[in-house]
Amino acid sequence: MTGQSGAARARPTLVDVARSAGVHPSTASRALNPRTRGSVSPATVQAVLRTARRLGYQPNPVARGLKLRRTFTIGMLVPDLTNPLFPPIVRGIEDRLRDSGFIVVLANTDNDDDKERSLLAAMTARRVDGLILATARREYPLLRRVTGAGIPTVLVNRTTDAATVPAVLSDDHSGIGQAVRHLAGLGHTRIAHVGGTREVSTGVARYQSFVSWMREVGLDPDPERIVFARWFREDLGAEAFRELFARGGAFTAVVCANDLIALGGYAVLRERGLRCPEDISIVGYNDTPLNDKFSPPLTNVRIPHYHMGYRAADLLLELIDDAEATPVDVRLKPELVVRGSTAPPLR
Amino acid sequence: MTGQSGAARARPTLVDVARSAGVHPSTASRALNPRTRGSVSPATVQAVLRTARRLGYQPNPVARGLKLRRTFTIGMLVPDLTNPLFPPIVRGIEDRLRDSGFIVVLANTDNDDDKERSLLAAMTARRVDGLILATARREYPLLRRVTGAGIPTVLVNRTTDAATVPAVLSDDHSGIGQAVRHLAGLGHTRIAHVGGTREVSTGVARYQSFVSWMREVGLDPDPERIVFARWFREDLGAEAFRELFARGGAFTAVVCANDLIALGGYAVLRERGLRCPEDISIVGYNDTPLNDKFSPPLTNVRIPHYHMGYRAADLLLELIDDAEATPVDVRLKPELVVRGSTAPPLR
Repeated sequence: MTGQSGAARARPTLVDVARSAGVHPSTASRALNPRTRGSVSPATVQAVLRTARRLGYQPNPVARGLKLRRTFTIGMLVPDLTNPLFPPIVRGIEDRLRDSGFIVVLANTDNDDDKERSLLAAMTARRVDGLILATARREYPLLRRVTGAGIPTVLVNRTTDAATVPAVLSDDHSGIGQAVRHLAGLGHTRIAHVGGTREVSTGVARYQSFVSWMREVGLDPDPERIVFARWFREDLGAEAFRELFARGGAFTAVVCANDLIALGGYAVLRERGLRCPEDISIVGYNDTPLNDKFSPPLTNVRIPHYHMGYRAADLLLELIDDAEATPVDVRLKPELVVRGSTAPPLR
Repeated sequence: MTGQSGAARARPTLVDVARSAGVHPSTASRALNPRTRGSVSPATVQAVLRTARRLGYQPNPVARGLKLRRTFTIGMLVPDLTNPLFPPIVRGIEDRLRDSGFIVVLANTDNDDDKERSLLAAMTARRVDGLILATARREYPLLRRVTGAGIPTVLVNRTTDAATVPAVLSDDHSGIGQAVRHLAGLGHTRIAHVGGTREVSTGVARYQSFVSWMREVGLDPDPERIVFARWFREDLGAEAFRELFARGGAFTAVVCANDLIALGGYAVLRERGLRCPEDISIVGYNDTPLNDKFSPPLTNVRIPHYHMGYRAADLLLELIDDAEATPVDVRLKPELVVRGSTAPPLR
């Protein structure tokens, strides 16, 4: 990786400044960067700047210029750009990176191991300065190879079980909690869950959060009312809803692991002559564009995807500037958006 | 640019092969490429291959290897990736380029001149082998600078008035014709047009096509029933619909220059207590994802965006391989998709 030269190593690092100022390294980094300073309290900014001056710390733009072989290019892998989840993430990443003079190489992997391997090879051959991956599975051996090669890497949207690499995620526990409490507050007691694949962190986190929040509000997370779509897709969401109905149990509301699965649910309700929300309430997840245009407009949990991308780029630039920066995860707060697909149960 | 060396120049070119075989250079190129051969008649493929062998023509993969300084990187500019039009185009481009070992550097310009200038500078500094631009305006001085620097460039979705650079477009004349004939066939006579901005080729082409097709089917393209959205956006589409209603003229159907404008129309109809399609029929343009989920599902003209991107990449690779390839435009055939937003007029 772009290690600092021996001479440069003697300089105080960001971690030294943070330790002396008594703040977390990511706070110190934010305080030192004019663009991110606004998110830190003025007193802390003053303390960090004073400490940096006292120690003779070279702020990032200068340190950056000292490093060699920088291509100012970042590699970005997404599963499929035509999934409406990803364009705002990519846009946020590109906006943040452009501010710092970096450009983005983008590629689609379709969650295919072979494609990912060859794309990562193509990117490392071009000496990208870092990687942002929206493609993590819970088991993700490729990641070790990348980080083993010393390439600064940040995950976005999904993480791995090992969680060794910084990730920018949505707080799924909070998001699913808002969905479950909304439905319980409307009077629903028999609430079903149509999960996404448990191969990826979001699928398993939303499922686990559903089970804990149902217990938390005093309801039974009956396994008979929990099914999983084989992937986060409309057609596979419909398949999972059909399985849920085929089991014959009663339910009046469904928390879906994403919006496309919820759309699959809309289709299956129509097939069976059921109305949403009168017969069955449905909650989606993500707030992808145009959700307010569906019939009925979809109640769902909003994830700030653009900001997710922006923060991922931020975190990666921090890592690139200072390989010793303490790795962190960032979790963005989701927010329930109530629209027309949820209502009190009829019975 | 990546000019061929003196020795290589002595080799017969694609144009020589085409001339000897009596076909257009783009046909010869397609016949020589195993991936595109299927689109040429078998007899022509035979004739071209025979001629190429006779002249000792080196097919592309070999010629490519002889060239120097190739970065196998393509720059791609889009106005805004979160506009649902662009992800499938980018996906098509990336899929095609990956097959040939190229990667894509992607950036958003927001149709902002300064941003475009600095992004193009960033891309040329990284010695991209070519550019695909989805950002053309009818007057687009930046383009001359890029082509003047000898960088192979292809436009996608939009072109310039000067039309000096190859472009992959949809056949808007055909698409708008299908929309107008559909409405006329339902019995509409007072048909309005909510156009997009005339700063870009698609806005002006769809407007001009609307006027010619109205005349063609014997209807009056009354200027009182023609308004323009300041840009292809939902909010500005709504603004244009309000202007159309404010003029006080009567109309029973509207051809919109894109789907987002049509969605703005849906909102204005609701504001005024009008029903779609009972009171006013609406036709969109593009068939962006989820149009079938709106209320009512949107009748619109489908553009094959993925294929548009794929063909743009194809064309660019041809240009990169053979700077002498005759520049062409490619126009993809659109197709009317009839859904729930159009019906016969009540009166």
